[in-house]
Parts: sequence; C-alpha cells; structure tokens
Amino acid sequence: MGRIICAGLGPGDPDLISVRADRALRSARQIAYFRKKGRQGQARRIVEGLLPAGVAEHPMEYPVTTEIPFDSPAYNALLAAFYDGWAARLVTLAQAGDVVIPCEGDPFFYGSFMHLYVRLRGKVEIEVIPGITGMTGCWNATGEPFTWGDDVLTVLMGTLPEDELAEHMARADALVIMKTGRNLPRVKRALAQAGRLEAAWLVERGTMPGERIARLSEVDDADCPYFAIVLVHGQGRRPAAEEAA
Amino acid sequence: MGRIICAGLGPGDPDLISVRADRALRSARQIAYFRKKGRQGQARRIVEGLLPAGVAEHPMEYPVTTEIPFDSPAYNALLAAFYDGWAARLVTLAQAGDVVIPCEGDPFFYGSFMHLYVRLRGKVEIEVIPGITGMTGCWNATGEPFTWGDDVLTVLMGTLPEDELAEHMARADALVIMKTGRNLPRVKRALAQAGRLEAAWLVERGTMPGERIARLSEVDDADCPYFAIVLVHGQGRRPAAEEAA
Ligand SMILES: C[S@@+](CC[C@H](N)C(=O)[O-])C[C@H]1O[C@@H](n2cnc3c(N)ncnc32)[C@H](O)[C@@H]1O
Ligand SMILES: C[S@@+](CC[C@H](N)C(=O)[O-])C[C@H]1O[C@@H](n2cnc3c(N)ncnc32)[C@H](O)[C@@H]1O
Repeated sequence: MGRIICAGLGPGDPDLISVRADRALRSARQIAYFRKKGRQGQARRIVEGLLPAGVAEHPMEYPVTTEIPFDSPAYNALLAAFYDGWAARLVTLAQAGDVVIPCEGDPFFYGSFMHLYVRLRGKVEIEVIPGITGMTGCWNATGEPFTWGDDVLTVLMGTLPEDELAEHMARADALVIMKTGRNLPRVKRALAQAGRLEAAWLVERGTMPGERIARLSEVDDADCPYFAIVLVHGQGRRPAAEEAA
Repeated sequence: MGRIICAGLGPGDPDLISVRADRALRSARQIAYFRKKGRQGQARRIVEGLLPAGVAEHPMEYPVTTEIPFDSPAYNALLAAFYDGWAARLVTLAQAGDVVIPCEGDPFFYGSFMHLYVRLRGKVEIEVIPGITGMTGCWNATGEPFTWGDDVLTVLMGTLPEDELAEHMARADALVIMKTGRNLPRVKRALAQAGRLEAAWLVERGTMPGERIARLSEVDDADCPYFAIVLVHGQGRRPAAEEAA
C-alpha cells in the first residue's frame, strides 16, 4: 500500500519548491492535481519540467455548473460529493504505490487538499510537505520587507462583506487580501473606507511568468485578475538609522 | 563585485529549504549569520551539513548589555550601530565575491535581515530568496489544516500589551502568536480573556529536532520556551460531509 503525498509547491517559481517536495515530484509514478475543467491548472503548470517520463496523471476537475451559484448549499453538496469521490479513488490508486498531489502554496493554508485530507486520514498513510505560501512569494516580489517589530498582520479573503473587510483593515498594521478576482472593487472600497488604499499593492501571478506588481489605487476597476493578492506593508518599530536609508 | 544573497531557511528542517536557497548555500564561499553571543545560532545550526568545506564564516553577534533594557532607546541605538557596522562590513566582504546570509523562516517576515537590507540597498546587489515561514512549519507540524474558506487569520507578537492581544484574539478566526518566550503567561491570559485558550496549541521548535506540540492550557506558566509559536486553528466553512470524518 502506497502513501498519499501532498507536495506544497510554493508561490509558483519551481525554484521555490522545497528540497523535499522537489524530490517527491521528481520520483513520482502517479500524480493527481486539482484543476478547472478545460484548463491545464496552476499546480500542473508549476511542476511541468520536474515530472519523470511515464508518470500517470489524474486531473481532479472541480464540478462545474451554470445553474447554481458557487455559494449555494447545492454547490456545496456537489463539492462534497466531488471530494468524497476523489478520496475513494485515491485510496484505490494508492494500492499501486505512492500518489503525489502537487498543491499551490502551502497545503494547509486555505488549500483544496484539506478537503481530501480530512476524508483520507485513518484510511491511508498521508504525508504533507509544507510550501512557501503565495502571500510570502508575493511580498518578496515587492522587494519591500513586509512586517517589522510588533506589527499586527491580518489575512483576509476578498469574499468577505465590505464592512467586515473594512473593520479588519482599520485594525491591523500589515494586510494580505487573497481571493481577490471579481471581489477586487469591493476590496478597494473597503481599503478606502479604512484609509489604507493608498498604501496597497496588487501582486498578480507573484514569482511566475507574467508577474505584475502595481499600486492598487492605479488599477482599473474592470481589471480583476483571478490569481492575485493585495498587500499593505507594515511600518512597525525599527532601530532609527534606517529611516534615512 | 559580488552580491549579498539572503537565503530564507524555512522553519528548521533542512529538507524544507527551497531548491534555490539550497543551491546558494551549497556553493557558498562566504556566509554571514546572526547569533547571540556564545550561541551557535539557529540559522547556523540549520545549514550545518549543507556548507562546502572551506567556506569563510562571519557570525554577526547581537550586541549584549546587562545595563539597559531591550526596549529602551539606548538599546535601539546600540542595535542601529550594530546594523550600520555590519552593513558596511558586508559591502567590503562582497568585493571578494558573493556573501550568503542564511536566515530562519522567510527573510521579509519579521526578520533581522530586513535591517541590513534597508541599509544595503543601492550600495550592493541583493538577492532575497523567500522561505517557508516558521508559522507555516508549525501549523503543518500539528497535522491539522490551519485556515478554511473565508477564515480571518491574525498574526500577533507576544510582546504586545495584554488588552491589545485580547482584542485582536477575539476578532480573528485563526491566530498565530510569535515571540512568545517570557511573554507566554501574558499571551495565555489574553487568550483566556478572548475565550480562545482551550483551542490554543503551543509548537516549540517546529520541524526541528526536539519538536514539541502541546495544548497551551496544559503548559505550565514557568515553562516559557524561547523558540515557540502559539496557534489557534480556523474552523471556517467547508463542504459538509467532512464534518463527520
Ligand atoms: C485557494 S487560495 C490557495 C492558497 C495557497 N494554499 C497558498 O498557500 O498560498 C488561492 C489564492 O491564493 C492567492 N495566491 C496564491 N499564490 C499566488 C501567487 N503566486 N500570486 C498571486 N496570488 C496568489 C490568490 O489570491 C488566490 O486567489
Ligand atoms: C524574529 S521572528 C523570525 C520569523 C522568521 N523570519 C519566520 O519567517 O518565521 C522569531 C520568532 O519566530 C517564531 N518561530 C520561527 N520558526 C519557528 C519554529 N520552527 N518553531 C517555533 N517557533 C518558530 C518564534 O516565535 C520566534 O520567536
């Protein structure tokens, strides 16, 4: 009986994969990865060039629907069935040996793999290899240190209601907002409400080909990249001399 | 003229270093690293076994003082002079070729290297290689997914005042508290005040030899490990089936 090995991929640059995950990927005989129907998928794109010849590939395609909204109980039921189905399938695949599941960023940080993990544990041996989170890749991409001294950092999802976003944004020193996409105009309004919009950066496809870094206030409202993170850097206490640097 | 290459080391397990940082370390001819006087230093310990023979080593020892408190302006001035001095020294060292600076976790996340970075930029070419943050290593060490759905995550330093800690703790879903050490009893009181103590974990030396994971409520008040992180996992929305898993 093989194991399920979830390999955290980091933010996108294959050079930022950990030594352990790199080793697991280069010796994989079976892999499975999430993707949207009809797309190659971010995880699969990142590991292109690392996989050995002849590896068996199992794309796990999210259920699509044009009828029900993504936040409805009906879609949730569809997703649950999708995860149930793949959990069962992975147990079967593991009978032939290890299955490596490459996942963007860190698997335990807002990752889809977590839904498989809670279904698989107890049934098969699982190894989870941590990865550099997308936000870490993105704040490094700005070339500006992110949190200092006793800065408070809050990480928010762009899917939250505007007032809730604004409240959290006003209270923290450094901010990360993920899952921006269509939510970007609301995220911008919330930042403006909290007085933080001028300090915010948009990082699209951080550490990947096509990386873009822009002041959020200068990004058009119609421009809502899916794979992007909004950042506000902390300004915490620090030994004085460098203020002048 | 060489470059200054800051290599993020990740949480401690050398296998969790990125492929790029691993390569930089294995080909280093000069390294510099922070440490407390008389200690080997965490960063130096992590890279033991990776460094090539004959590498020139430059320990950067934090100034010590028994006379002035660590949060006083006088100590801040001492620290500023320390960073100024090493920034100048590193520029000189770089004239002989690249200098690699191994740093725990991610360099731009509450890292000491940032104080050198702001002094060095413009004077020498700098490359910063991201790393897995200590908190990411620690939440993976618990074996429990950390943030789900639209969970709000707040990262706090144990150095903050108790009431400020408690306020932030009550508002976020998932929590990370770093720089615990002597602050641990205050962190515990703040968690209790916010009604979060029972859900909190202490991870000491996450992913390193001697790793310890304990329920914070069961940790003695006299037990204040320096290299530890407190975690409260998020409980965000998720497709229903797995609740039963
Ligand atoms: C479902 S979350 C997965 C997070 C992942 N597990 C991690 O550790 O970063 C997907 C969100 O991550 C953000 N993201 C991750 N990597 C990114 C990158 N390299 N550039 C921009 N955004 C990124 C985007 O906001 C995206 O909506
Ligand atoms: C000055 S901060 C440096 C953070 C680092 N740059 C990072 O990305 O994690 C030092 C604090 O990080 C935390 N820490 C970092 N790695 C850790 C680990 N492996 N286990 C426990 N705590 C860790 C501790 O709370 C410690 O007080």
